[in-house]
Amino acid sequence: MRAPAGTIITSLRVRVGYIDTDQGGVMHHATYLRYLEMARVEHLRERGLDYNCFELDQRLGLPVVEANLRYKLPARFDDLLEIRTWVAVANRAKVRFDSVICRRAELLTRAQITLCCIVLAEHRICSMPESIVALAATVG
Amino acid sequence: MRAPAGTIITSLRVRVGYIDTDQGGVMHHATYLRYLEMARVEHLRERGLDYNCFELDQRLGLPVVEANLRYKLPARFDDLLEIRTWVAVANRAKVRFDSVICRRAELLTRAQITLCCIVLAEHRICSMPESIVALAATVG
Amino acid sequence: MRAPAGTIITSLRVRVGYIDTDQGGVMHHATYLRYLEMARVEHLRERGLDYNCFELDQRLGLPVVEANLRYKLPARFDDLLEIRTWVAVANRAKVRFDSVICRRAELLTRAQITLCCIVLAEHRICSMPESIVALAATVG
Amino acid sequence: MRAPAGTIITSLRVRVGYIDTDQGGVMHHATYLRYLEMARVEHLRERGLDYNCFELDQRLGLPVVEANLRYKLPARFDDLLEIRTWVAVANRAKVRFDSVICRRAELLTRAQITLCCIVLAEHRICSMPESIVALAATVG
Repeated sequence: MRAPAGTIITSLRVRVGYIDTDQGGVMHHATYLRYLEMARVEHLRERGLDYNCFELDQRLGLPVVEANLRYKLPARFDDLLEIRTWVAVANRAKVRFDSVICRRAELLTRAQITLCCIVLAEHRICSMPESIVALAATVG
Repeated sequence: MRAPAGTIITSLRVRVGYIDTDQGGVMHHATYLRYLEMARVEHLRERGLDYNCFELDQRLGLPVVEANLRYKLPARFDDLLEIRTWVAVANRAKVRFDSVICRRAELLTRAQITLCCIVLAEHRICSMPESIVALAATVG
Repeated sequence: MRAPAGTIITSLRVRVGYIDTDQGGVMHHATYLRYLEMARVEHLRERGLDYNCFELDQRLGLPVVEANLRYKLPARFDDLLEIRTWVAVANRAKVRFDSVICRRAELLTRAQITLCCIVLAEHRICSMPESIVALAATVG
Repeated sequence: MRAPAGTIITSLRVRVGYIDTDQGGVMHHATYLRYLEMARVEHLRERGLDYNCFELDQRLGLPVVEANLRYKLPARFDDLLEIRTWVAVANRAKVRFDSVICRRAELLTRAQITLCCIVLAEHRICSMPESIVALAATVG
């Protein structure tokens, strides 16, 4: 799992909170989904798409339909994590964000999160708008 | 803090999850608000008020405006907790639920959670409906 | 994804909390990991293995190394969910729990959660103990 | 509730996540404890005290014994919040952090969080170390 050449990768830095840990002394595996979601929102913002406006103005939502995570090394309290995120797939049916979560040079976690598009009011699946499909475009 | 004579007290039993713990080896202090909320929903249900219907049918909500918690003893992973809940105050302006969280005979936590009533669509404060005010009535 | 014949399947019922929802009006996708974890703890308990004792007595832990979830239909506030869980794979290297999350007859989510075994003190991977490997045994 | 003259106030900025919201369309009341905890950790760091080292080196912890929160206005998804935090009380028995949570000029929430000191291994209350008591000192 590596971003293809020309892919736009964004980076979000987060600090692991005490609440994020469990009695095993590491960040709980569910918490990664929190930070991956934040990374997707920032990825969209950096590429000109405000997700809050997306929901409010277009009345569309992007719920998660599939989540695949591989945990290699544990994150710990107070770690500074970097989440590198890119759009791996985007078409009328779905958009898939791939991410790696790192602590400096160490790769801790890989994730692939697939979203579909819905009409919020009815929670009915609809076609992905062009603004999202266009995210798959590479540079250069 | 003790329920006055005649007060209707309900009891909810919950099991502390692994995700609820932190690296200190105890249940995180924020998690109590999760279980207190569940206890209020069950208190309402046992007294004939379905909170989901309250939101869906009356388009009203009961957001928390004040939370006061005293943590006496820590809860631990896999503990079976009992949350005893009663309505301490209910009037046109607010409703206050008091709770004690126990592990068998041990009192772990005391909480007082005060809610107001809002019109959901606008998040505007409104008068508490009679169905909630009536919860303060004691028996006997 | 279906449990093979003879597989021991356990069932856990949970109620979706208000805190579990997000502004999309459904249970947040990260919350499923909370309930799947609870279901694994109960699966172990029903088969004679107390996970808390496992950590305390043997000083071993079972961290998640891989999580794969497919969200078919959303869960909503106050829904009663049933989580059916079985051991799909168990060997010296890993144990994989498969689950389906249902609301009455509707299948909402499928999940495959893979755990390895570690020595808790050092967070070092070790061989899965026989008590866990034995969970893969089928009946009949 | 206002910081006395000379009190050292620190500021933490956080972005409200989608996961932080509930179906009422606002940040859930429990989430404030997450961000208040982060603000205390940063307050300590800015004043030369690394909480992680505090636990690891001194084997002491600072669990919450009392939490009092007043919610004035709701926070919403994607809001940038500022948490201003100061030490209101610090003595041998306890330390109390007071905070206000603001969105630009609007005050959303006030909180008073009281911690005691424990020996982590036994979860036994002990006297607050001088490094914490000294935090109450004002400047000027």
